Amino acid sequence: MSEDAVDLNAKFDLFSEHWSPKLVARLNDYEVKLVKVKGDFVWHSHEETDELFLVLDGRLTIQLRDRDVTLGPGQLFVVPRGVEHCPRSDTEAKVLLLEPAGVVNTGDTGGALTAEVEQI
Amino acid sequence: MSEDAVDLNAKFDLFSEHWSPKLVARLNDYEVKLVKVKGDFVWHSHEETDELFLVLDGRLTIQLRDRDVTLGPGQLFVVPRGVEHCPRSDTEAKVLLLEPAGVVNTGDTGGALTAEVEQI
Repeated sequence: MSEDAVDLNAKFDLFSEHWSPKLVARLNDYEVKLVKVKGDFVWHSHEETDELFLVLDGRLTIQLRDRDVTLGPGQLFVVPRGVEHCPRSDTEAKVLLLEPAGVVNTGDTGGALTAEVEQI
Repeated sequence: MSEDAVDLNAKFDLFSEHWSPKLVARLNDYEVKLVKVKGDFVWHSHEETDELFLVLDGRLTIQLRDRDVTLGPGQLFVVPRGVEHCPRSDTEAKVLLLEPAGVVNTGDTGGALTAEVEQI
């Protein structure tokens, strides 16, 4: 691997906390973030943007108001803008997030799980 | 997996041709595409956008004018807008591309490898 490439597994080894997305790459005004998730997040939505979840390891359930979307490694789902969702993982999952820069992880809900995005 | 999730391996099983990106998901005005690559592509650049390459299987070399960036599974690289590049894979690689809708695979070079993007 070249030094300016991004190795996702190596990046995941740099942190252990849950629900705290880390910035690993930029694409125009979009950001690629990695997050470890475990347990239940909070119900929220993003009025201004879609949000892409790609599971790299483990199993992630994206609870929607009308159904659950469950993802394993190599599976992705795009939550449409404005749609309420609550991610959950009973064990732990490693997830790649893609969305415009500046999106707050808890959307319009806020609260204790709101995280500052650190670049790693 | 829920039916509206996207399984990347299942999508790759739907086609075999090289250098012909397939649309598998949309995120706002961006597109997630899958492509199988083998051999050399053409030197080109995209004046209007960065372009993200995430390797899912195999090995991809993104030749730049001043160096090569080599990626294996779980490694990504963002080619900055305007930077000439020529992807190459000596065996075969399965790659996820992310870029704004409407980007032409051969950029400002065109030619026989220019592909229409089909949704699968």
